[in-house]
Parts: sequence; C-alpha cells; structure tokens
Amino acid sequence: MDYQHFFRSELDALREAGDYREFAELERHCGDFPNANCHNGPGEVTIWCSNDYLGMGQHPAVLDAMHSALDRAGAGAGGTRNISGTTHDHVLLEAELADLHGKEAALLFTSGYVSNWAALGTLASRIPGCVVLSDALNHASMIEGIRHSRAQKLIWKHNDLEDLEAKLAALPLEQPKLIAFESVYSMDGDIAPIAAICDLADRYNAMTYLDEVHAVGLYGPRGGGIAEREGVMDRLTVIEGTLGKAFGVVGGYIAASAELCDFVRSFASGFIFTTALPPAVAAGAAASIRYLKGSSAERAIQKERVAEVRARLDAIGLPHIDNPSHIIPVMVGDPVKCKYISDMLLNEHGIYIQPINYPTVPKGTERLRITPSPVHTEADIDRLLTALEALWTQCQLARRPIAAE
Amino acid sequence: MDYQHFFRSELDALREAGDYREFAELERHCGDFPNANCHNGPGEVTIWCSNDYLGMGQHPAVLDAMHSALDRAGAGAGGTRNISGTTHDHVLLEAELADLHGKEAALLFTSGYVSNWAALGTLASRIPGCVVLSDALNHASMIEGIRHSRAQKLIWKHNDLEDLEAKLAALPLEQPKLIAFESVYSMDGDIAPIAAICDLADRYNAMTYLDEVHAVGLYGPRGGGIAEREGVMDRLTVIEGTLGKAFGVVGGYIAASAELCDFVRSFASGFIFTTALPPAVAAGAAASIRYLKGSSAERAIQKERVAEVRARLDAIGLPHIDNPSHIIPVMVGDPVKCKYISDMLLNEHGIYIQPINYPTVPKGTERLRITPSPVHTEADIDRLLTALEALWTQCQLARRPIAAE
Repeated sequence: MDYQHFFRSELDALREAGDYREFAELERHCGDFPNANCHNGPGEVTIWCSNDYLGMGQHPAVLDAMHSALDRAGAGAGGTRNISGTTHDHVLLEAELADLHGKEAALLFTSGYVSNWAALGTLASRIPGCVVLSDALNHASMIEGIRHSRAQKLIWKHNDLEDLEAKLAALPLEQPKLIAFESVYSMDGDIAPIAAICDLADRYNAMTYLDEVHAVGLYGPRGGGIAEREGVMDRLTVIEGTLGKAFGVVGGYIAASAELCDFVRSFASGFIFTTALPPAVAAGAAASIRYLKGSSAERAIQKERVAEVRARLDAIGLPHIDNPSHIIPVMVGDPVKCKYISDMLLNEHGIYIQPINYPTVPKGTERLRITPSPVHTEADIDRLLTALEALWTQCQLARRPIAAE
Repeated sequence: MDYQHFFRSELDALREAGDYREFAELERHCGDFPNANCHNGPGEVTIWCSNDYLGMGQHPAVLDAMHSALDRAGAGAGGTRNISGTTHDHVLLEAELADLHGKEAALLFTSGYVSNWAALGTLASRIPGCVVLSDALNHASMIEGIRHSRAQKLIWKHNDLEDLEAKLAALPLEQPKLIAFESVYSMDGDIAPIAAICDLADRYNAMTYLDEVHAVGLYGPRGGGIAEREGVMDRLTVIEGTLGKAFGVVGGYIAASAELCDFVRSFASGFIFTTALPPAVAAGAAASIRYLKGSSAERAIQKERVAEVRARLDAIGLPHIDNPSHIIPVMVGDPVKCKYISDMLLNEHGIYIQPINYPTVPKGTERLRITPSPVHTEADIDRLLTALEALWTQCQLARRPIAAE
C-alpha cells in the first residue's frame, strides 16, 4: 500500500465534499476580547463564536491566580496524579468543584473530552451488565466513551421522555443502567428535561450522567449549571463539566459521590496514565469558579446581549432556532452559502463566525452559531446585524421570524 | 443493583490487594525544585520520581513565555481548534515541533495520552485492513488507541526483532501495517532498536509509529529524542512526543508528513471535538523546546547525576536495572516492602519516591523508579543513598550489584 497516496486521496475527497476544515489563526488580545488578530485572514476581527462565553479567559481574577501559581509552583505538574503530579492546586480545585455541584467529591481530567470518554468508558465497562441509554444528540466524547466500554448501548430520541421510558421499561429492573445526556446541547441550544429524566431514573433504578459543559458558570445562582437552576443537582448521579468554556481556562471534571469518584480515579486509564494539568491551570480555573459563584453580573449581562441579538434578528426576519439558552443558531440551510457568508463576514466585515456544516450538523441545517457574551458591545451587535442583513440580501436567503427545524 | 455498594466493594477489593492508590499532595516550590511541600505528609520533601526530568518546569525561559502569553492572549483558547480555538501560539508550537523532529508537520493534542489514543486510533481504524504490530510493553494510551480502532492487533515480544519479523513476514506484503513502539520504556528504562525496526518496516512495507515521550528533550543534540541521537528521525513515519515531561509543561503531539498530520487533524475525534490548549501552555512549551534545542548543559548534567546515582547504588550493592537511559529502577521485588520503604523515605527522610507495584509492573518486580535530574544536588544524592542503605538493611533485602530482570 502507498500510505501517502491514501492520505492524499482521503483529504482530496474531503475537499471535494466541501468538508475540509481550515482553521482561522487567531491572536486574542487579552483585555480587549472578543477582538483578535486573524493572522491568516484580514487582521483585526471580532469573534462571535467563542465558547469563552463570559470572557473569563481575560478576567483579572483568573489571570492573577495563574501568574501567582506560575511564580509559586512553576509550569507543569511533572507527573501523573499518582506519581508526583498531584499538587495542592489540584486538590483545592476538586474541592471547589464538589462544592459547586453540591456533591461529595469531584475528579479532574485533562479535558472535558477526556472526562466524558474516561468516566463513561470506565463506568459502563466496569459495572457488570451495564446498559447505557444515550441521547441521540450526545457529544462525540460521550459516544466514544460508550463505544470504548463495549457495553450495550440504547440510543433514545433526543430529549424524548416517552422513548427513554419505553427503552427503560423494556429492561429488567435489576439490570444496571446509565442514562447519559446533556443539559444544553451545543449546536441547537435546546435544554434537556432534567427533572423528568431523573424521575424516570428513579422509577427504573438507573444512574444519571449529565454533561453540563455548555451550562456550568452560566446558569444557576452560583453558576452550577441548569441542574442548579432547577434545583435538581442532588438527584443526578454524575455531573460532568468543563473548565474550558465559561470558566475560560482548560480541563474537565466529574462531580459525584465520594465512592463513584474514587472508583473512576482508581480504574480509568485516561485518568491514571496521563500527566496532570499544570498547577497554574488548576489555580486559574478555581479562581474562575470562585468568582462566578459570587458574581451574577456577567450572567445577567450575557442574558441581555443574547436577548438583544435575538430581537434584532427577529426584527429583520433572519431565521434562528428559538431555544432557551445562550446559543443562537442562525439557520442558513445551505453549505456553500453558509461558508460564503462566513468568509464574507470575516474578510469584508472583520467578523469571525465559523460556519457549522455537515457532519457536525445534519445536511440542510447548516448554520452560523453565534454566542453573544458580556464583553460584546452595542457597537459590536450593530456591526454584526448590519453585516448579516446585507449578506442575507446578497445571498437571496429567505427571511422568516420563526424557528428552523 | 445498588450502585454505591458496588463501588464500595470494588474499592475494598483494591485495598485488600494492596493496589489502592493514595496520592501525595505536593506543592512544588518554583525555583527550588526538586523540593516541595507535601501537604498530606511530613512537610518539606525532595522529589526523586518526577518526570520533569530536566527541571524545565521552573526554567525562566518557560515561565517568562507563559507570563507573557497570559498577559498578551489571556487564559484559555476559548474553543476547539476549528471553532475559534487555533491561536498564533499553537501554530508557532507546531512549527517548532516539526522542526525538532525534521518532519514536514506536527499536530498538537491536549496530552500525550490523547495524542497516542487519537492518532493510533484514527490511523488504524481509517486505513482499510490495517494491522497494528504493537510492542508487548507499549503504554496504556497506545493500547487503548489500538483497541479503540478495532483494527487487527499483533503483539510482538518486547524489543524482539525476531518475533517482530516473524509476524511481519506472515502478513501479505500489500496489507497495510503499522509498527507501534516506544524508544525509552518508562518502567524498565530500556531502549528499542529503532534502526533495526525501521529496516524491518522497509522490508515489509510497514509504517512506523514511535513514542518518544520519555526521550524528547533528553536525547539527541537538539533534544529530538533517541531517533535524533541515532540519526534515524527521517526513517520513522510518525514520532509522538509529550510537552509534559522533559519540556516541563503539558500536552502531546505527533510529527510526520504534512499529509499524515492533515489526515489525523481531519478525522481524529479526540483532536477535533476538544478545547485547544491555552495559548500560554503552547508558548511555554515552544520556549522550552527552543531552549533545549540550543542548550545541552541540562542534558549533560543530568547524565552525570544519573551515572553518579548508579555508581553509588552499585557501591553498596543495591540492585537496579542496568539500562542505557536516565531512569533508574531500584528493584525491591516485594509489594509490601516497596510500599514500606517508600513510606519510610517520605516520613523519616523527607524523600518522595512513589512505589511502583502491580499492575503497573509485573508481580515480583516491584520497584522504586528514581529519576535524577540536573536540579538534584550532591547533598540530595547523599541523603538519598544514606536513606536507601539504611532501609535496605532494615528490610533485610538482598544486595547484589547486578541487573534485575
């Protein structure tokens, strides 16, 4: 086999299908986010598609904690958690996370992806006969973790309680079950009926595993996520979250009972055999969590910004999914036009919104996924709406004030 | 099923087998490493088991780059590499890595674990009919990646060219093959015959995938690893490395042809669907690599320290594996005594060396894995040897000047 030829032909196929990804090379300006320099684009741009939802990546509380930890403890952790890599900062962060979710314990991973992959993979493979009931729109990291476990998997229709219950009821009551789902789904921005899912879990003796990566820091009086807002944190077996979105740093975690965390800690290959996060990352994340536990100002301003962008989109008839979250998917419904609008926004208007095409979303639902933040100004919103309206006209896209899909 | 009861009983079984892990909670003192404060131990300790092999985690070049990137770009990357998370610092680091290994390109992952898991998983699953020939002592991350791919796997005897050739020869010449192995093996510190493996790869039309995580920064005139030292970097298809050991920060990568890196970039779930590393981490790692390309002083002093510890062990007859690397496995050969010596070193002598027991190493080969670094002093070495000798006598362990295993 000619390996290089194989790689080239696979990449060519991606290009022909329009699915080849080119990365925008950004240089964020600390203190001036959402503005950045786009090195392989037009220079100065405003970012409208970041998951640094609250701008905490440039918050002085976070940066001070990281600078101070670098000076105090150095750069890397120097080992796995078991072999010299557990620092005081890791322990403090895990305590902060357990407290955030009202759980006995938390366990830190190098990323949200790894936390889902390792925790679901370990629970589903190690609990004898475990069946995983997985929401149809779960994130790739959850799917890969479940796949890796080789446990039986049942996929239930997205956010569909009836389908979930039918699948639960068809299993023996004594069989171990794990319901895996998200609170805020990243691409549509819709929200799961968490309490009702917990009711079903109670009825059918299932564990629940809730991914709150797009919600932690953003919802609930202390930023504990949708489950905190709805007062159901104590009903969930596992809450999984990230330190890399609203908290503005990097890393992932689970919060759960002391025994469950200790079990995953003791058996998860993806936790055991990997270098621990740098102490400065742990310190920065802990500072971010602490800050957002005490301050709701950022969440309040973000809500205003989101509401304003939605209202302005409605006023000019640009279709977007009318979901109850902070994620605004503006529906283009055509992969070529979606890419074209994104390119024009970047090059003609200095606005960076990555186009979201198949396979990330179903064909025909291509979109611009907009994430307004407290650090976007009125002037930023004006520029965004003016540019979108001009491009909508230019591309002869339909206008309608209703939700797509 | 009573889930909590299940977790508890599994943890109890670990405790009964002596395999339950307790983490030492350390607070490293930047500038004074290998010294640290052990919060759940005796206070001040000297770390002798870190993978921050050269002390780069506290090097001013690394810390300055990280401070400066924090001030310039903020804390987190704010997104996946595709959606707003590719920063200028990531691009510069990948160029630095490609140059380090003399390859066309490099691709960054959130950890060395993820780089192995994602790259091997993607290559082995996406190349039709690919067979992976995996060294018997490969790291967990490689094993999990190969397992995840569901490709055919053939395990060859550790570092055994004859067994590898027999397995290669039994496969059709045209069948895609990937030989996966490490240069320096972490637990025994032995080194693979890289050139001879490349000869076999050429003869049987196989790709080679070399994990150099315990070698990058440490070997070769520019820290390119064992393959650089032996002049065979260009013969390897993929070189995988870490930024979390000798480079002192965190993260993993592969270096390979532009097409291979682009292929993994385009298809690896573990690369695509995860938040990018913070720009400050990328900047710190790039500074560390640049520094170690130009300075061999740290490598030279490390070699002296390693040689001295070995000579002092020999002088008092303490058994250690006489390998050609910087890793000194002092063989205890008994899990209870290994743990006891480690506890006594920590509590009575202020010396932290994590005991390495089953399942990390085979039963009967329990050991203390010692990693001397340029920042260990003569006085540190004196204290270590004095303590080891006293404990060896106390535990009535055999002395012999020969290599175990």
